[in-house]
Amino acid sequence: MKERLILVTNDDGYDSRGLAAAIEVVRDLGRVVVVAPETMQSGMSQAITIYNPLYLRKVREEEKLEVYAFSGTPVDCVKMAFDYLLRDRRVDLVLSGINHGSNSAVNVLYSGTMGAAIEGSFYGCPAIGLSLDDHEAGADFEASVRYGRRIVDQVLAAQLEMPLCLNVNVPIGRPDELRGIRLCRQNRGFWREEFFRHEDPRGRAYFWLTGAFVNSEPEAEDTDEWALSHGYVSVVPVQTDLTDYRQLENLRFLNRNETIKN
Amino acid sequence: MKERLILVTNDDGYDSRGLAAAIEVVRDLGRVVVVAPETMQSGMSQAITIYNPLYLRKVREEEKLEVYAFSGTPVDCVKMAFDYLLRDRRVDLVLSGINHGSNSAVNVLYSGTMGAAIEGSFYGCPAIGLSLDDHEAGADFEASVRYGRRIVDQVLAAQLEMPLCLNVNVPIGRPDELRGIRLCRQNRGFWREEFFRHEDPRGRAYFWLTGAFVNSEPEAEDTDEWALSHGYVSVVPVQTDLTDYRQLENLRFLNRNETIKN
Repeated sequence: MKERLILVTNDDGYDSRGLAAAIEVVRDLGRVVVVAPETMQSGMSQAITIYNPLYLRKVREEEKLEVYAFSGTPVDCVKMAFDYLLRDRRVDLVLSGINHGSNSAVNVLYSGTMGAAIEGSFYGCPAIGLSLDDHEAGADFEASVRYGRRIVDQVLAAQLEMPLCLNVNVPIGRPDELRGIRLCRQNRGFWREEFFRHEDPRGRAYFWLTGAFVNSEPEAEDTDEWALSHGYVSVVPVQTDLTDYRQLENLRFLNRNETIKN
Repeated sequence: MKERLILVTNDDGYDSRGLAAAIEVVRDLGRVVVVAPETMQSGMSQAITIYNPLYLRKVREEEKLEVYAFSGTPVDCVKMAFDYLLRDRRVDLVLSGINHGSNSAVNVLYSGTMGAAIEGSFYGCPAIGLSLDDHEAGADFEASVRYGRRIVDQVLAAQLEMPLCLNVNVPIGRPDELRGIRLCRQNRGFWREEFFRHEDPRGRAYFWLTGAFVNSEPEAEDTDEWALSHGYVSVVPVQTDLTDYRQLENLRFLNRNETIKN
């Protein structure tokens, strides 16, 4: 069998603990190429860098492992990998993470980790975003590594339709404290934000985003939020046709084959 | 009738021509508050600023018009408006744009214009992202203003279900050269990217993203790409449940109520 080629990326940067944990998930599955941001890129969504040049740097090379730092966003890293470093190579899997903090519910939209995973899925291989529901610097990644590996193994073994992108979130706990893996839909909810307002040392007011997630359907047992808060690893398959087909019906009145005069 | 309150934002920055055109679309509809980025934020998707303080600046105030520049992303601007400046006020419409360059097809995912529109729709009012398929600095915004206004009027007059977010794209041309307005779904396609590689003045290699959009279904007449390339203003309603319900069926095998031993 041909050696597998796996791309690893993240949004916390090339030297983060979560990235090391992601490498651990896939290290013995084949050749691993890491292209990760030079700097923290949390909350970068699917942002791309259009108006600036970007710099690529090889950080280290070991047997079957190369690590690159790239000065762009998580999505830039994925594009750099597929469109330059690995151009015309067959990639078997994209793994993005392991993120510090969950990307369940609406967070999938803001997440750089998921931005990179979604971008990876555009290139025809399975892509998995893996996040741990723990923002602590000393977070224990072991359960994420173990359950993440289980999911990776199953996805690689299955013959699945492409595109395939999974948003995987892992609750805090030791592996044997988690209850298993649950396939879910994205929870409905929103962030109730507040801006923390204070003055900088020069007396100028600054604002800092802070907020709390509000779950609009806490009782719904088929959502990722429910799974996470009940001790399960949540898996939500993600797609990118944003068309609101339900609203299409309500908006028929907008159709007009009618020109406006100058 | 109570005076309408309209939030205008964009991703090209508070002093762009497209923003002036967006103000023109809604200026006589009520009180207009603009919160737009200090700097160009193209390609910023739904990015939020988590790890930096942000600065707000009132740029100007006229009768029924206030313009603020905010040092964050387009989504930060929307949050600043709803969660601070206009907190507890009823907003009737969010208008984001007018963008230089279309945000049809998969571009909806990368677009800062649409990131802001989507964010706006989370706050319970109709939100419209308006883009002109012309990157030229001297682009003629008149057709965008006129057709944009027609859509705004119809949306404000209708009693529509929320959330409602529209991705509106306008082809190049004078108003009477366009053929009308077409309700569409998001086109399937992808960017075939290349990195332009060159050396900076100090001999260090840099990379610059460049690419071309590939339409995977050029014959499909119900897509936004088709409408745009055939002289119509395209309108795609956008929603944010990214769950891939089709794949849910294929992935049932991932469900496991089974703990992994430590």
